[in-house]
Amino acid sequence: MISAKPEVVCEVYIHSSYADKSRIELERLCSQKNIAVRYDDKVFARINHNQKENCYVAGVFEKYLCSLDEAKPHVVLVNPGDMGNLGTIIRIIAGFNICNLAIITPCADIYNPKTIRASMGAIFHINFQKFDSFGEYADVFNNRGLFPFMLNADMILTPDTCPVVRNGLFTLIFGNESTGLDESLYSKTGTSIKIPQSALVDSLNLSVAVGIGTFIFALKNKLL
Amino acid sequence: MISAKPEVVCEVYIHSSYADKSRIELERLCSQKNIAVRYDDKVFARINHNQKENCYVAGVFEKYLCSLDEAKPHVVLVNPGDMGNLGTIIRIIAGFNICNLAIITPCADIYNPKTIRASMGAIFHINFQKFDSFGEYADVFNNRGLFPFMLNADMILTPDTCPVVRNGLFTLIFGNESTGLDESLYSKTGTSIKIPQSALVDSLNLSVAVGIGTFIFALKNKLL
Repeated sequence: MISAKPEVVCEVYIHSSYADKSRIELERLCSQKNIAVRYDDKVFARINHNQKENCYVAGVFEKYLCSLDEAKPHVVLVNPGDMGNLGTIIRIIAGFNICNLAIITPCADIYNPKTIRASMGAIFHINFQKFDSFGEYADVFNNRGLFPFMLNADMILTPDTCPVVRNGLFTLIFGNESTGLDESLYSKTGTSIKIPQSALVDSLNLSVAVGIGTFIFALKNKLL
Repeated sequence: MISAKPEVVCEVYIHSSYADKSRIELERLCSQKNIAVRYDDKVFARINHNQKENCYVAGVFEKYLCSLDEAKPHVVLVNPGDMGNLGTIIRIIAGFNICNLAIITPCADIYNPKTIRASMGAIFHINFQKFDSFGEYADVFNNRGLFPFMLNADMILTPDTCPVVRNGLFTLIFGNESTGLDESLYSKTGTSIKIPQSALVDSLNLSVAVGIGTFIFALKNKLL
């Protein structure tokens, strides 16, 4: 957060018992960027209440808005329901150099600490933008290759079948964890895609589907 | 569970308010397999205590032991720490027709309901076996291609570089969620592999690394 988006950082809290060697580095970085460091263990009592793991450092930032880059590949998540999944997916797509994420509402809260922690900081490296419907997204970004991922699909995704998209202007679309994408809505949108899988499972879980889809597209379109 | 491993099933509990149309099918299936069906809502009060989602059907089974098939590809998880991750990984590898999983202890409990639920039933389609160390595994299965996944690796995994392994006898090895694989121990074991990723993230999360690794190996070795 401090390195990627220092302009949104308000302050940093450090617990008194945090003795990792990275503490000096963190304090130096905050001082260099003129970010106030607070030492207030009561804040951590609240943060750590009912959590599995204790937190020793916390950052406070102002929520910010960003817009998607129309010249870059996108991922669209339709109604993602779980904050941990949303953060994990942000980490994955950033890991494959896809840094523009559209989220169709209703959706999990991208600013919730659970989402941000699951992203392992990657959220500060991507652009994200919310839309009330997929149609609203498609009206703004209307000159791209659209690839909805669904079980009943036109194309089986392999490294050989994966398309090379002109100027890298592709949009990979993924549905909700439980319900997937509504076929009636998406089957006529672009080229629907299925990741090959055995009959032993009903489906892949969402973050793995996003991971494999973005990995194969990123390699084929030379983003990695 | 009932279809894949009926011999381990003891009984099935159904909540009185479970009115899904699949209930009749479930009762028919239990009757056909001579599995007792119990109607006891108190059991669900205990199961659902402190859970996010209510459960309406529960199966009871006897723990069982299985052995890995030496003629098939394997995945080895070294000290997996999280039950949800372990179950998700079981679902993923079954989805790519890799049905033999070695787990190096200490590890998350494979029989915990959290693991089993996260596997979405896939656990009943795979063979799993615990080993006290990787050496113990390698002593038993000593005629295979070993591929530890680590950040500091010999080979960058892409569909082109992915090896075709004789008779499909490969073993993909993945480390713990936080600590990965110990380089000193694994860098001389087989061909170490890295999944290409951007500098925006420190690493991929474990289940996505397993997903991409098994997907690419499964495709290249014609398991899918």
